[in-house]
Amino acid sequence: MRVAVYPGSFDPVTYGHLDIIERGAKIFDKVVIAILENPNKNPLFTIEQRKEFLLSAIAELPNVEIDSFQGLLADYMISTKAHVIIKGLRAVSDFEYELQMASINKKLAPNVETLFMMTNNKYSFLSSSVVKEVAKYGGDVSDLVPPAVLRAFNVIVY
Amino acid sequence: MRVAVYPGSFDPVTYGHLDIIERGAKIFDKVVIAILENPNKNPLFTIEQRKEFLLSAIAELPNVEIDSFQGLLADYMISTKAHVIIKGLRAVSDFEYELQMASINKKLAPNVETLFMMTNNKYSFLSSSVVKEVAKYGGDVSDLVPPAVLRAFNVIVY
Amino acid sequence: MRVAVYPGSFDPVTYGHLDIIERGAKIFDKVVIAILENPNKNPLFTIEQRKEFLLSAIAELPNVEIDSFQGLLADYMISTKAHVIIKGLRAVSDFEYELQMASINKKLAPNVETLFMMTNNKYSFLSSSVVKEVAKYGGDVSDLVPPAVLRAFNVIVY
Amino acid sequence: MRVAVYPGSFDPVTYGHLDIIERGAKIFDKVVIAILENPNKNPLFTIEQRKEFLLSAIAELPNVEIDSFQGLLADYMISTKAHVIIKGLRAVSDFEYELQMASINKKLAPNVETLFMMTNNKYSFLSSSVVKEVAKYGGDVSDLVPPAVLRAFNVIVY
Amino acid sequence: MRVAVYPGSFDPVTYGHLDIIERGAKIFDKVVIAILENPNKNPLFTIEQRKEFLLSAIAELPNVEIDSFQGLLADYMISTKAHVIIKGLRAVSDFEYELQMASINKKLAPNVETLFMMTNNKYSFLSSSVVKEVAKYGGDVSDLVPPAVLRAFNVIVY
Amino acid sequence: MRVAVYPGSFDPVTYGHLDIIERGAKIFDKVVIAILENPNKNPLFTIEQRKEFLLSAIAELPNVEIDSFQGLLADYMISTKAHVIIKGLRAVSDFEYELQMASINKKLAPNVETLFMMTNNKYSFLSSSVVKEVAKYGGDVSDLVPPAVLRAFNVIVY
Repeated sequence: MRVAVYPGSFDPVTYGHLDIIERGAKIFDKVVIAILENPNKNPLFTIEQRKEFLLSAIAELPNVEIDSFQGLLADYMISTKAHVIIKGLRAVSDFEYELQMASINKKLAPNVETLFMMTNNKYSFLSSSVVKEVAKYGGDVSDLVPPAVLRAFNVIVY
Repeated sequence: MRVAVYPGSFDPVTYGHLDIIERGAKIFDKVVIAILENPNKNPLFTIEQRKEFLLSAIAELPNVEIDSFQGLLADYMISTKAHVIIKGLRAVSDFEYELQMASINKKLAPNVETLFMMTNNKYSFLSSSVVKEVAKYGGDVSDLVPPAVLRAFNVIVY
Repeated sequence: MRVAVYPGSFDPVTYGHLDIIERGAKIFDKVVIAILENPNKNPLFTIEQRKEFLLSAIAELPNVEIDSFQGLLADYMISTKAHVIIKGLRAVSDFEYELQMASINKKLAPNVETLFMMTNNKYSFLSSSVVKEVAKYGGDVSDLVPPAVLRAFNVIVY
Repeated sequence: MRVAVYPGSFDPVTYGHLDIIERGAKIFDKVVIAILENPNKNPLFTIEQRKEFLLSAIAELPNVEIDSFQGLLADYMISTKAHVIIKGLRAVSDFEYELQMASINKKLAPNVETLFMMTNNKYSFLSSSVVKEVAKYGGDVSDLVPPAVLRAFNVIVY
Repeated sequence: MRVAVYPGSFDPVTYGHLDIIERGAKIFDKVVIAILENPNKNPLFTIEQRKEFLLSAIAELPNVEIDSFQGLLADYMISTKAHVIIKGLRAVSDFEYELQMASINKKLAPNVETLFMMTNNKYSFLSSSVVKEVAKYGGDVSDLVPPAVLRAFNVIVY
Repeated sequence: MRVAVYPGSFDPVTYGHLDIIERGAKIFDKVVIAILENPNKNPLFTIEQRKEFLLSAIAELPNVEIDSFQGLLADYMISTKAHVIIKGLRAVSDFEYELQMASINKKLAPNVETLFMMTNNKYSFLSSSVVKEVAKYGGDVSDLVPPAVLRAFNVIVY
C-alpha cells in the first residue's frame, strides 16, 4: 500500500492544506496527516482542537487519517514505516526552506522521499499565520478555512 | 496501478535524470520515461539514440518503461490515461518554470498532478546542456552520464 | 491628467494583460497600451493584427487607448510626455528582469516612474508564449485569450 | 482626487522611505503615510516620535499627509475610501512577502490596488532594522535617516 | 599579507563552516575566524565552548586563527586593519541577506570587500540551527559536526 | 603570488566590469582579465576591439593583465596554473547560474575556487546586453561604458 504522510502544524487547517490533502488522496492509497506537536511553539489552538478541525474537514475522504508526532519527522517516518512525505509549495521562500528540510530528512532517513505539490493558484497567498492575523482583527476568513475553524475563531476573545 | 510519467528531452540522459528515475520507481508501480520529440529544437542526439541511452541505463529497473511523444504533455497524459507527472527540481529558476508548466498542465488536464522531487545535492549543477558543453571541449563527463552516452560523445566530430 | 503607459509585445494579448489594463484604467485617468514593434523579433501576429485584437478587447474601456512604438521605451515616454509606466509582475524571474528595465529607464528618463501591479493569481502561469505553444498543438485556450485572438488562432496553418 | 496610501511601521523613517514618498507624491494627487500601530511589536520609537520624524521630513511636500491605524490595512483602506496602496520593493524576499500581502488585501478589499515602486538602487540595502542595528553600536547613519531621527538616536541610552 | 576574516556565530561550528575555512586558507595568507558575541541572542554554547570547538577543528590548519568581537563587523574590520570578509553562500535567501550585509559594510567601511564562496553541494542544507534541532531530538549528526561538538551535544540535558 | 582570473565576454566592457576589476586588483597580487572567444556567439565587437577597450580602461591599474581563451574556463585555469576565479553578482538569476558554473568548474578543476563579489549598487542594472540595446537606439551610455567603447558605438552603422 502506497502511504503518503502530510506533516504540518495545522494551527489551524486552511483550504490550502485541504486542497493538497484531497489531491494527495487521489494519488496515494492512504494519506496520513501528521500534526507536529512542538512544545516550544505557542499555538493558537490545542492539538485536540487541531485534530477536530481536520477530522470534520476530511469526513468525506475515506483514505485520509490523522496522527500527531513530536520530535523529528524523519524518526516519525521510520517508526511508522512510511516512505513518502508530501508538501505543498507556494513560493520561492517555501521552496528553499522545504528543499533544506527534504535534504536533512533524506540524510536522516535515506529511504524516505519528499514529493512537492504545487499549491492551487487561488490559495497561493494563504497560510495559517495570515488567516490568524486576519481573523484576529475581525476580517472575513469564511472562504479560507473550513466551518469548524470559523466557529472556533468566532469564540476566541483576544 | 500507480503510474508516473517522467517527461523530458533527455538529450542526453544524465545521472541526475537517472537519480530521479530510480527514486520514482520505488514510489510508483511504474515509471514511464516520456521523451519529447520537438521538431523545432535541434537536438544533439536523435530520438533513437536517446532511447538507446535510456534503455541501457534502466536495464536493471524492471518497472521503468520508455516512450516518446510530440505536442503537449497534457494531451499525452490524457491519451495514456496517466495521472501523475514527476519532475526534478534543482534551483529557483527551475522552480518557477516548472510551476508555470504544472499550472498550464493542470488547466489542460485537470485530473493530472505534477509531483516534484528534489534533485540529489551532488547533481544540483547538472543538466544536459552543461554536459554537452563540457564534452564538446573534451572535458571529463564520465561521472555525469552513463557509459552509453560517454561512448557516443567520444565518436562525435564537432 | 494622470496617464499611464502599458508597454509590451502583445503577441497576442491575453486575459492576463487585460486584467492589468482594466485595473490600471481604474487608477489612472488614461491608460495607453504601447505595442513594441521590434523588427528583430519574429512575431506570430502583425502589428495590425495585434492592434485589432486589443481594440476589440478594450471596446468597453473608454479611457484606454492603443499606440505603438519602435526603439527605447524611455524615448517613447519622453516624446509622449507620459510619466508613468505600468507593468504586471507574476514571478521572481519577472521581478528581476523588470527591476533591471525600470532602473535603465529611470536612468534614461529620470522623471518616469515604473509602477508594478501584481498579476491576478488565476493568470499567474499565463504568457503570450505559453498561449502560442498550447494553441499550436490544438489545446483549448478559450479562457486565456479574448475571442478575436481565438478566431485568429483557428485560421493559422502551422 | 487620486489618493495613494503608503503604509508601514516607520520605526524610524529612512531615506529609502522618503524616496518612495517623494516619487509617489509626483504621481498621485495626495499621498497618505499610514503608520501601523502594532501593539504586539516592540518598537524603538513611540507612535508620536515616528509621526514627528515623518512630519519634519515631509515639510516641503504639500500633498503628503500622515495618519496612523490599527488592525488590518484592508479595513483602513475601506474606511478612508482610498483605493491605492504604494509599496517599495527592494529584493526577491520583499517581493514574495508583498505579493502575499497584496493578495490578501485584494481579497479583503477587492477595489483596492497595490502598486509597487522599485527602491532607488542606492538604498537597496536599507531598512529600519539595519539602521537601528548600526546606530545601536555607534555606526554612522547620517546619510541613511533624516536629521530628526539622527538626533533621536543620539540621545538613546541602550 | 593577505588576511581574510570569516565572521559568524559558530553556535556550533559545522563541517559546512570548516569547508569554507579550509578553502579560504588556501587562497589567503591568513584566515581569522571572528566569532560574533551577541548579548541579545541566546546561544546554546558559550563563547568559550565555541572557541574550543573551532580550535580543535582547525588544529592542522597553520594559517587559521580565532578571534571574537562585539558590535559591528565593519568596526572590527577597521580596528584589525583587515580588508577582506569571506562568507559562504548556500541559497537565494542567503544571497539576498548577505548582499544587504555586504552593502551596509561597504558603506561603513569602504575599503573592506566581502567575497562569497559557494558552499560545497553536500553541505547545502547544513546550518547550525538545523544541527541543533536534529541533535536535540537525538538524531545522528556525526557527519555534520566535528568530534568536539558531537561530544558536547551528548552531554547536554534538554 | 595570488592571481585572480576575471573571465567574461566583455562585449563590450562596462563600468560594472571595471568596478569589479579595480576592487579585485586591491585584493589580489594580479588580476588577469580572460576574454572568452566563443565562435558560436555573434559578438558586436571583435576580440581585438574588446582587448583594446579593456587595455585603455585599465591603463592605470599596474597589476591587471588581459588574456583571451577558447573552450572551458576550467582548462584555462589549469593551463595557466591560476587558482582563483572572481565574478560579480548582481541578482538572484546571476546567482543561480554562477553557482552552477562554479560547481562544474570545481568538478573539472578541484583546486580552483570561484569568489563572488557584490556588484556596486549603482551598476546593479548594468550588463553588456543592456548597453548594446540602449546604444543601438541612440540612448546615452556615456556613464555606463568607458570612452573607448563610447567612440566605437558612435561609428557603428546598424
